[in-house]
Amino acid sequence: MLKIYGDRQSGNCYKVKLLLHHLQREYTWQSVDILAGDTRTQAFLEKNPNGKIPLLELPSGETLSESNAILNYLAHDTPYLPDDPLTRARVLSWQFFEQYSHEPYIAVARFISKYLGLPEERRQEYEAKQSGGYKALTVMEQTLAQQPYLVSDTLTIADFSLYAYTHVAHEGGFDLATFPTIRTWLQRIALHPRHVAM
Amino acid sequence: MLKIYGDRQSGNCYKVKLLLHHLQREYTWQSVDILAGDTRTQAFLEKNPNGKIPLLELPSGETLSESNAILNYLAHDTPYLPDDPLTRARVLSWQFFEQYSHEPYIAVARFISKYLGLPEERRQEYEAKQSGGYKALTVMEQTLAQQPYLVSDTLTIADFSLYAYTHVAHEGGFDLATFPTIRTWLQRIALHPRHVAM
Repeated sequence: MLKIYGDRQSGNCYKVKLLLHHLQREYTWQSVDILAGDTRTQAFLEKNPNGKIPLLELPSGETLSESNAILNYLAHDTPYLPDDPLTRARVLSWQFFEQYSHEPYIAVARFISKYLGLPEERRQEYEAKQSGGYKALTVMEQTLAQQPYLVSDTLTIADFSLYAYTHVAHEGGFDLATFPTIRTWLQRIALHPRHVAM
Repeated sequence: MLKIYGDRQSGNCYKVKLLLHHLQREYTWQSVDILAGDTRTQAFLEKNPNGKIPLLELPSGETLSESNAILNYLAHDTPYLPDDPLTRARVLSWQFFEQYSHEPYIAVARFISKYLGLPEERRQEYEAKQSGGYKALTVMEQTLAQQPYLVSDTLTIADFSLYAYTHVAHEGGFDLATFPTIRTWLQRIALHPRHVAM
């Protein structure tokens, strides 16, 4: 059976859970506590030398790291990852956007606030994350004003990748009031019959 | 013909050039000067709302952003992107590693030093980038001690993605003296008959 090493509060880990529920795949979930040092143990570093979660472990014992790489692997040959090369590349484009232009602002602001309790020594960093986060949301809003999902008319893993931290962006101090199409898109995803909450 | 919007000194843009030379594909190169504001013009933002280079424009006029998404698109059905789903996912895993755990340290330190001339007000940020960069290099060194290329026995686009900023890491203050297998890997890539310099 597939095994996921993850943290229930991590958006990166939630992406994988969300896809697995859509695909109705069975899996086991091994909870990993980053703040307790679980990703820095010798045993975990042997599975992922970069010391990050989520990590997918296959029945063969092989492992795969990086949330978006895991999504691409699991969604292969499913409707969540269309086979056309340009469409697949557009899925990847959004996923790289997510990791470079969205997550480092929105997820990190949320981490500082929700996990660490917004300590005074990180307040300046937290505030510096806001403009980059709003810029990413603006790019999403522009696209979603033209189409129901990020890549096309159908739900793909690009939507899961961006949904993960966008739907909890308020926990990082982001107000979605001025992003109506993002809010509609979040609801559309949440209302899918096979949706699962974080 | 394919058209690339890029900056000759940018490692993200160089990845695309390197692959196109390996594939012996013809293309035109449109120089874009980030510091002069070329990526913030209305005309460019219509092509890429995120305002980043490289950007690929197809003969149809369609565009694709994000360097690593462009590589996956162009390498489709070539030996640089093996068809096996797990191997492809491992290529992506390294590319997401590059964008999250490597580029924000090594490329940004290089940008502050080489493009901006290491101004005093960014020295602290520059120095803070060093430990993350060395951590990324350590992960690469561990892998390359076991195999000639990052994903397997053959050269893939994962190697191009990591080569781009690793081979100029010294311009960001990183010393590769203690990374002998990375240095051998860099030489191996540079000695390929279809290699092209940045």
